[in-house]
Amino acid sequence: MSLIVQKYGGTSVGTVERLQTVAQRVAREHRAGHQLVVVLSAMSGETDRLLGLARAIQNPPSARELDVVLATGEQVTIGLLAMALEAEGVPAVSYTGAQVSILSDSAFNKARILAIDADKVRADLARGRVVVVAGFQGIDAHGNITTLGRGGSDITGVAMAAALQADECQIYTDVDGVYTTDPRIVPEARRLERITYEEMLEMASLGAKVLQSRSVEFASKYKVTLRVLSSFKEGPGTLITTEENMMEAALISGVTLNRDEAKLTVLGVPDRPGIASSILGPIADANIEVDMIVQNVSADGSADFTFTVHRNDYDKALAIVQTCAATLAARAVLGDRKIVKVSVVGVGMRSHAGIASRAFRALASEGINIQMISTSEIKISVVLEDKYAELAVRVLHSEFKLAEDP
Amino acid sequence: MSLIVQKYGGTSVGTVERLQTVAQRVAREHRAGHQLVVVLSAMSGETDRLLGLARAIQNPPSARELDVVLATGEQVTIGLLAMALEAEGVPAVSYTGAQVSILSDSAFNKARILAIDADKVRADLARGRVVVVAGFQGIDAHGNITTLGRGGSDITGVAMAAALQADECQIYTDVDGVYTTDPRIVPEARRLERITYEEMLEMASLGAKVLQSRSVEFASKYKVTLRVLSSFKEGPGTLITTEENMMEAALISGVTLNRDEAKLTVLGVPDRPGIASSILGPIADANIEVDMIVQNVSADGSADFTFTVHRNDYDKALAIVQTCAATLAARAVLGDRKIVKVSVVGVGMRSHAGIASRAFRALASEGINIQMISTSEIKISVVLEDKYAELAVRVLHSEFKLAEDP
Repeated sequence: MSLIVQKYGGTSVGTVERLQTVAQRVAREHRAGHQLVVVLSAMSGETDRLLGLARAIQNPPSARELDVVLATGEQVTIGLLAMALEAEGVPAVSYTGAQVSILSDSAFNKARILAIDADKVRADLARGRVVVVAGFQGIDAHGNITTLGRGGSDITGVAMAAALQADECQIYTDVDGVYTTDPRIVPEARRLERITYEEMLEMASLGAKVLQSRSVEFASKYKVTLRVLSSFKEGPGTLITTEENMMEAALISGVTLNRDEAKLTVLGVPDRPGIASSILGPIADANIEVDMIVQNVSADGSADFTFTVHRNDYDKALAIVQTCAATLAARAVLGDRKIVKVSVVGVGMRSHAGIASRAFRALASEGINIQMISTSEIKISVVLEDKYAELAVRVLHSEFKLAEDP
Repeated sequence: MSLIVQKYGGTSVGTVERLQTVAQRVAREHRAGHQLVVVLSAMSGETDRLLGLARAIQNPPSARELDVVLATGEQVTIGLLAMALEAEGVPAVSYTGAQVSILSDSAFNKARILAIDADKVRADLARGRVVVVAGFQGIDAHGNITTLGRGGSDITGVAMAAALQADECQIYTDVDGVYTTDPRIVPEARRLERITYEEMLEMASLGAKVLQSRSVEFASKYKVTLRVLSSFKEGPGTLITTEENMMEAALISGVTLNRDEAKLTVLGVPDRPGIASSILGPIADANIEVDMIVQNVSADGSADFTFTVHRNDYDKALAIVQTCAATLAARAVLGDRKIVKVSVVGVGMRSHAGIASRAFRALASEGINIQMISTSEIKISVVLEDKYAELAVRVLHSEFKLAEDP
């Protein structure tokens, strides 16, 4: 008998029929003898509908009152799923964030969980009940309703699994696992059986949209074993766990593609201390997140400074950089939206040298020019002209034989 | 400075624009220096939408889980109204039934309020805030969400007013007060300035659909002064209070019409003890409510027994009575759907004799035949053939000069 936390997203509970499908799946696991806690999102579209109502009245809406309104979305789905389970003959009880005491701080709209009253849930589980919990929401020390922000339901699932010391936290989505790369680009891409938290974090932040980074970080911190599965298709999904739990770590786990960035370059800046901060300071002040940063010194003693931002922030960033460049007496400012970032991720890099040069050689053999390089302990990212995006992914996927079982 | 509880129904908060209208009205009272607690229903249609979802999943739905789902309707409107008030520059805070501790029993779907934590509300009022409270919902001693059943938001308003010892509980509806009779039948019908709880109870149960009887009973028990007003039209509305608070009680307050009943008669039952219970027992067992009951003994020693039920229950009641009649060896069973009940209501009847005979004479003068009569301390009801409905109302309204100021 295992204690399993299952989390279902908005599309998995978007209609009466889908809720019933979820109930059947939960009922099957319950009959198999497992203890189950089910964490739910709002029906797909509901949070946007509520947000629309709120904004029509006050824009931006009062942070406290917005959470009062938004929290209703999950409250509806938990009640409905508990009914669907009872209709399947499975005893069930639903709890809102307040009822199960998901105590959070008071940062409305983006609260952080502080504690969970696991005893109440354990008592219900011991009585043979399935416990259905509203994701995305909590209650602060003053009894105010809070919501946890983007990816909040995943966080609730992971936090619940941590508090209950569950055997596994299963995240049901519309994909059946984490793949070595995007199967739309590489049809032979392979579903990974297992992946480490760190790899998953790199994959998530690099453009694989399966899980929010925040919930993976949270799972890693509390050593909660995650499993990503499809709510529409049977299968074992992908297990996300510690490196110690990997039988044999693959050299490389995946190749990711990010099309959301743009590049800015300041040419011929006098090479003296403080250049980076005098350019990136105003960017940070404007709340623009910077991803890759590269600085080189030319033979003439001046420096070239390049960085990437989200494409949505490109125009704002360009205007700021042009102002800085004049102050710094830079030679020129260049901007480029037509770039992509391709990354190779794998914990095996730690112990194996030469991964980077293999990647560069493979790209060069296809005549692909690399504009920027950035590396970390378990990943290599390159910025390329966007027309090479799919080719680069295929070349790297093939170079590291990712279609084959490790 | 007064402490006023205002309650708005579903049509008053049915759209963003109407919510804003409510906010403007509340803001105006707030600026006039009053302390305000606002109790809200769900947006019109929302409770039915949620009930539809629930029934599509489980029918009948789990009582506990249905309340979890239904309670979201009011939670949305309180958050939105608090935003609308802040947009108007009025400090406001919303509370669900759980947050303001509207403690109820555990009778899901029809819970009764046991206590309210008025201190929390008083503290907010003292800080200059408008307090917006979700109607229709509470929380039981185990922390389960409950709903109060039909008319529940009115009950919340009255209970809140009682707990806070408010000066007045204002119930905003789509009519601008209680009228001497239905203005669609008698155009010169007059809005009553004041009416007693008892009269209002008779009016409510007799077919005037302004207030649920349960909330009037509750207000009467706790001596909460009620005022019925329109949320769409300015005006003083109608005050509902104790008889002692009436300057000068009118003889008659109103004439009501009820078209929802049907009549059943058992003819020629042997006149012996137990007839009534042998007929009405099976009716009660079938959960059919009986309104008027009349029994007469004929010259031949047999009895005729007549009663009325809701028209929806007529077929069921007729089948039951036909079975009883055979057992009782009754001569015949007659049924009649084409009847109406017209009533004259007024506390003045207590001290004035002859009201009944005046009413009967007025009806006779128009050739209207009376089929049944029933009286209480403050009302006279007659059952008539339905074709006389409007005529009877006009005759009685005119006979007691209800269009004139008292």
